[in-house]
Amino acid sequence: MTKAFQDYYPEHHSRCYGCGRLNEQGLQVKSYWDGEESFAVFHPKPYHIAIPGYVYGGLIASLIDCHSTGTAAAAAYRAEGREMDTEPPLRFVTASLHVEYLRPTPLGVPLELRSKVKEIKGRKVVITTTLSAKGIACARGEVVAVQIPEQLERELLSKKE
Amino acid sequence: MTKAFQDYYPEHHSRCYGCGRLNEQGLQVKSYWDGEESFAVFHPKPYHIAIPGYVYGGLIASLIDCHSTGTAAAAAYRAEGREMDTEPPLRFVTASLHVEYLRPTPLGVPLELRSKVKEIKGRKVVITTTLSAKGIACARGEVVAVQIPEQLERELLSKKE
Repeated sequence: MTKAFQDYYPEHHSRCYGCGRLNEQGLQVKSYWDGEESFAVFHPKPYHIAIPGYVYGGLIASLIDCHSTGTAAAAAYRAEGREMDTEPPLRFVTASLHVEYLRPTPLGVPLELRSKVKEIKGRKVVITTTLSAKGIACARGEVVAVQIPEQLERELLSKKE
Repeated sequence: MTKAFQDYYPEHHSRCYGCGRLNEQGLQVKSYWDGEESFAVFHPKPYHIAIPGYVYGGLIASLIDCHSTGTAAAAAYRAEGREMDTEPPLRFVTASLHVEYLRPTPLGVPLELRSKVKEIKGRKVVITTTLSAKGIACARGEVVAVQIPEQLERELLSKKE
């Protein structure tokens, strides 16, 4: 079975509430390529409610955030013609997040996120995402992701030791 | 003790994962006026991690979202010279959310959100927010909140019955 982008993250990047495979309380977003697009499917829990029958907007923002930074990393590896388990690691953090809520998102059905790489330049990747429920677009997002600064990466690795 | 904006929400609006007082798994954001600004303080849990030592960006987006829609409602009542427990109810949902992540937000300290009403016009309220840790601004947000459509409000009330 294909590994998700997030399953390639090293251990110290795998605690994230949104997408860390090692965060048991977290959302554990899993993202994959489908040709030029990336996608993820998420099943909200009943407590991810906003108003009765609809999904909480903060969850939608969270899903778009982590799916986008994962897609940014995957796109950066692809641009270098490398697999995600090769060195040096390329990890991204969010510089900005924008979400347009097009309509209330129904609770109780899987949500599908599909993303495109709008721009990839130097350490910056811009990802656009559509979040849909039952085939209907409910939210659109744009994330500016930047490669994690080397100094911060060194700091994280030293904490790990 | 002063009641938070969210403590005035009727029961069917109090299940929200971000700010519903009746959502036991949720964040239970509580917002208050401080003169012309609104504020909220939130204590992230250890599992609200992004990279080691820092707060998950999706949580920051979620806090800004719910604190802003709460502030939008409070501002709308204030503009009408009414208390938040008077009829008719004014509830807001998010039309768009924008977050700039200025620097990594440290985990393990309380986060303070302070918001201003940038615009209030008809059914739309625009709220700007600064999220700080230890007095240092870590993120800035702008939320366009719109008063919940009457049809949707009726639908929610009918579900409740």
